[in-house]
Amino acid sequence: MILTLKPQATKKDIDSICDRIKKIGFSPHISKGKSVTVIGVIGPNAILKKEIFEAMEMVAFITPISKPYKLVSREFKKDDTIIDVRGLKIGGEEILVVAGPCSVETKEILFEIAKSVKESGARMIRGGAFKPRTSPYAFQGLGEKGLKYLAEARSITGLPVVTEVMNINHVKLVSEYADIIQIGARNMQNFDLLKEVGKSKRPILLKRGLSATIEEFLMSAEYILSQGNYNVILCERGIRTFETATRFTLDLNAVPVIKKLTHLPVLVDPSHGVGVREFIPAMCKASIACGADGLLVEVHSCPEKAYSDGAQSLLPGQFAKMMAELKCVAEAVGRKL
Amino acid sequence: MILTLKPQATKKDIDSICDRIKKIGFSPHISKGKSVTVIGVIGPNAILKKEIFEAMEMVAFITPISKPYKLVSREFKKDDTIIDVRGLKIGGEEILVVAGPCSVETKEILFEIAKSVKESGARMIRGGAFKPRTSPYAFQGLGEKGLKYLAEARSITGLPVVTEVMNINHVKLVSEYADIIQIGARNMQNFDLLKEVGKSKRPILLKRGLSATIEEFLMSAEYILSQGNYNVILCERGIRTFETATRFTLDLNAVPVIKKLTHLPVLVDPSHGVGVREFIPAMCKASIACGADGLLVEVHSCPEKAYSDGAQSLLPGQFAKMMAELKCVAEAVGRKL
Amino acid sequence: MILTLKPQATKKDIDSICDRIKKIGFSPHISKGKSVTVIGVIGPNAILKKEIFEAMEMVAFITPISKPYKLVSREFKKDDTIIDVRGLKIGGEEILVVAGPCSVETKEILFEIAKSVKESGARMIRGGAFKPRTSPYAFQGLGEKGLKYLAEARSITGLPVVTEVMNINHVKLVSEYADIIQIGARNMQNFDLLKEVGKSKRPILLKRGLSATIEEFLMSAEYILSQGNYNVILCERGIRTFETATRFTLDLNAVPVIKKLTHLPVLVDPSHGVGVREFIPAMCKASIACGADGLLVEVHSCPEKAYSDGAQSLLPGQFAKMMAELKCVAEAVGRKL
Amino acid sequence: MILTLKPQATKKDIDSICDRIKKIGFSPHISKGKSVTVIGVIGPNAILKKEIFEAMEMVAFITPISKPYKLVSREFKKDDTIIDVRGLKIGGEEILVVAGPCSVETKEILFEIAKSVKESGARMIRGGAFKPRTSPYAFQGLGEKGLKYLAEARSITGLPVVTEVMNINHVKLVSEYADIIQIGARNMQNFDLLKEVGKSKRPILLKRGLSATIEEFLMSAEYILSQGNYNVILCERGIRTFETATRFTLDLNAVPVIKKLTHLPVLVDPSHGVGVREFIPAMCKASIACGADGLLVEVHSCPEKAYSDGAQSLLPGQFAKMMAELKCVAEAVGRKL
Repeated sequence: MILTLKPQATKKDIDSICDRIKKIGFSPHISKGKSVTVIGVIGPNAILKKEIFEAMEMVAFITPISKPYKLVSREFKKDDTIIDVRGLKIGGEEILVVAGPCSVETKEILFEIAKSVKESGARMIRGGAFKPRTSPYAFQGLGEKGLKYLAEARSITGLPVVTEVMNINHVKLVSEYADIIQIGARNMQNFDLLKEVGKSKRPILLKRGLSATIEEFLMSAEYILSQGNYNVILCERGIRTFETATRFTLDLNAVPVIKKLTHLPVLVDPSHGVGVREFIPAMCKASIACGADGLLVEVHSCPEKAYSDGAQSLLPGQFAKMMAELKCVAEAVGRKL
Repeated sequence: MILTLKPQATKKDIDSICDRIKKIGFSPHISKGKSVTVIGVIGPNAILKKEIFEAMEMVAFITPISKPYKLVSREFKKDDTIIDVRGLKIGGEEILVVAGPCSVETKEILFEIAKSVKESGARMIRGGAFKPRTSPYAFQGLGEKGLKYLAEARSITGLPVVTEVMNINHVKLVSEYADIIQIGARNMQNFDLLKEVGKSKRPILLKRGLSATIEEFLMSAEYILSQGNYNVILCERGIRTFETATRFTLDLNAVPVIKKLTHLPVLVDPSHGVGVREFIPAMCKASIACGADGLLVEVHSCPEKAYSDGAQSLLPGQFAKMMAELKCVAEAVGRKL
Repeated sequence: MILTLKPQATKKDIDSICDRIKKIGFSPHISKGKSVTVIGVIGPNAILKKEIFEAMEMVAFITPISKPYKLVSREFKKDDTIIDVRGLKIGGEEILVVAGPCSVETKEILFEIAKSVKESGARMIRGGAFKPRTSPYAFQGLGEKGLKYLAEARSITGLPVVTEVMNINHVKLVSEYADIIQIGARNMQNFDLLKEVGKSKRPILLKRGLSATIEEFLMSAEYILSQGNYNVILCERGIRTFETATRFTLDLNAVPVIKKLTHLPVLVDPSHGVGVREFIPAMCKASIACGADGLLVEVHSCPEKAYSDGAQSLLPGQFAKMMAELKCVAEAVGRKL
Repeated sequence: MILTLKPQATKKDIDSICDRIKKIGFSPHISKGKSVTVIGVIGPNAILKKEIFEAMEMVAFITPISKPYKLVSREFKKDDTIIDVRGLKIGGEEILVVAGPCSVETKEILFEIAKSVKESGARMIRGGAFKPRTSPYAFQGLGEKGLKYLAEARSITGLPVVTEVMNINHVKLVSEYADIIQIGARNMQNFDLLKEVGKSKRPILLKRGLSATIEEFLMSAEYILSQGNYNVILCERGIRTFETATRFTLDLNAVPVIKKLTHLPVLVDPSHGVGVREFIPAMCKASIACGADGLLVEVHSCPEKAYSDGAQSLLPGQFAKMMAELKCVAEAVGRKL
């Protein structure tokens, strides 16, 4: 970390800053220029003490020369992390498509959708048993019963299951049924939940918060890795902007940026990102084209009867058609699907 | 709720939509215009079923004619809610100033700050024992020890205490020490935590999420009231925008908007909202001028040694000076401080 | 347009609103429901008078049932507009790649870049002679001299030329040299300039403003068409959001949305949208995958010596490599390049 | 400006960067730390060449140690600029309230409003003769006829007049009628227009763009000052964010920030910023409380008949009531009204 001091900083100010640097365990490296004095703060993880220097009256600018995250960074691990889930590889050559309804509603509908998406080429099933809903009066999910239906759907189709956990006390329960545990966008900075899933043995699918910067997103992943769980999959799902033509603004820039900064696999969820059925296939293609390792797609056999997010669910026929198109795009960028 | 159908909707489409409306327990009211058909969906809380209609192919627009929140609305309760905390009234004529350090660090510093802000006119103490931090490597708070220090600070000064809870399993513990329980911005849509504090007897201070619309903010308050806890205080603390000159964009428009929509008291936290010490007094004045019922202000006797947010903490002398100025503004708008 | 009145609206209020509707030339169509009265405002382009109704005390909601733009809409013209520029078709099967330096600097560099991008498959040259710069002290472009160099580059390579006009008084001059006239993002709502280029015979490349909604973007295109110039090409170039890891947030959602709403061709400018050299190829691929009709790409043979935007310019070798990759993606989505 | 190099930068890279620094007229000042090399770029206005260094492969970070604007900065001129318009002082002790209709419609309505706002204490009249409208089919203003009406309103009331110019060719015409020339938000980066009004002798009221950072806003002011016109008044009018409860998000943080960075007077326009009549008085009070030098307020005697922005216009009675309240707030912060 490099501190650029204000021009009016005196010898005494400089000494006092250097003393403080030493007291917290780092070495100061002073460089006096014609008009400005610069102090390097040398030592492992100095950046984590940034706040101390921000509060100093005589510090004009702070230049971070290292990232605030460690374990998730490419510097820590150069090669792509490939996560194995019942034999499926996430983050490798193959593009993973996870599909299913927004929420688990009835056994019959879930099984029908699961069988249908499998036939079209999906390799994993998604579905919510615990649902984070803006309104306390909206359907909150079937809870454990929903988890059981998901496990049955897995038995029938052979496809592994991704489902969300919202509550620190449900992590164990969800782990028993799910193959991958999802942390939703609204819980991206629910730090105690991150720590808890960090102790789980299941891979974690972490969704980007609605207004999280990429750096904050990676810091939340770091919470999980710092507890010992290295199997984290990142998922871009749209950020909040001024545009109202779409539900959110799917930030595909984030895909190449994250792939550069971290070794973790990156999925994209265009269903939530754009929120309008007819625009989802286009954004799925774009996601693969810019380097995503996979997709999360909402599919419902009767969207008008869905308990949630019907407007953004593809019909099984639309999904099948899209999968054929995605195969071409995947191959065009040297991947398989 | 009013559905405006697409021009191409046929008699059959209209019948099918009306059937569905009846099946979910509402009455359809059809009005055919020259170029367009409009269907009113009549019945209590029809708006809560909005998603069902969004997924319908033939529905072009949905006009909500009621709000999705009930208990927090002015329609439900016309008069301002005034919350009594150890004799202090929040939401009445008097402006409440809550002040203290960002996080509880040592006993000595906390007591020193508490005494000092009391002298300057603060009526309540703030301080974090459980701290939501972007980095897993940053100071995470003293936990229960911090709560004990806060309780001691209350004994010494007589000032009630506001402190944050982040974890559903800590609600009982925090309730034992705190007079008001804070839900931080990053947990505004941690719905299980909202439900849990909704069962508490303590008043709740709910902070607006970084990218939460005002409607979502009120829906989160509705979660708490729907569990039986009617003592909710709303707090604007800055939203995330493109501007980087300040830490967040304090959205003071929200104050009169929220005061109109709801009966709950509204505080403002300019320390987080603007994030730069020297601009905080101006924004505190503006908050009172536009109708806020109180302020949350970070004060630290030695910001450079603070474990968090030192850059946005006022010095005790700056706080004292500001309080004198705020008194004039409060009186100018017919309030007391 | 449908007006939903407030519940307290009286018979007198309703009559007065209907009178006003008639006075401005439309027919009111009243529908009284149990709890609410709805008035349809019938007549061509009623939506253009929306503001009048917004100002009415008793109007609670306004539901627009038609779009505020006409000539640019798919309703007005169902088939894709294909624009012919010296034999090149924009908006057809073939993907158009426009490449060149951010600004025209010297003859030599321009020619070198032009020849190189042609070799790699670019079909048009871009380069700024009049440069909108945030700072009055930054290089403002070579002006007419730059236009002449561009025309020479066209003679040498046979590639048509796109260049920006910023000033209403330069439209004629730029038209003499350019094959397509660009309106930059910062001038998207410079309405007098839009009217002026609407009178030009040259096709117009209209860039989306940094904070323009898609509807506002189309309204700006409508300005140009309303003056008689139907050859407008729309260009997504990134919107302003809270994310700072990239220069702007390229909003690729906009591509399928715009293609649905309008018949005009859509290009994407990932160079400005993402603003970091190494991420541009990924976003170019994504743009084609989601349906863009072409790309605008900045290329510079020596970015470190560029007068502007060097950090986001591809090197000629990087551009050549990317073009080969884009060809595959174009074919995967049924297009040619 | 300080360049922090990448750790892998070699001796050769460092030499090459230093050569380039010297070639463009500055002196390099190298400081080698343990893990990183830092180069200071010394010389007047080095910051204006920032782009050159951004494009360099081996430069990891750039720390600007000076601002990119000069003439508008507090460093250039320490004391507040006070602008004299027909004897009125803008930027001094007195708060200036400018009021009037959004657009000039008829003589009668304009005169009626002008007389009424004068009586309530407004010291200047606003009204648009040239109107920037999102739609080409909306009322575009009366043009020169509108300017004449404004001049007549000035004769009748004695109040100076503020009106907008949109077109570089109208600057002379508008100057003949207006006392202050307004540049609207959508033209904040219409650089040729900024240069043109920079040559005018009239004071300029420059509105902040919808998505302009404070730094960009000041750079646009710098354009005007750099042409010799030092009488620039800045106006915050709301920025574009995700919140839809208000028309824009009035960014009052900008007021103390701008007052610190520049010597120019700052007005606030809550009518556009919040866009809903009933919330405007609260935001006017807040604007004065946080240090604004004045207000722009839309007033209309019959908002339902206004050609534009009726929904955000105060009625004359509401304006009169508000002015009495503003007087108290102004005095509370040591100002007069």
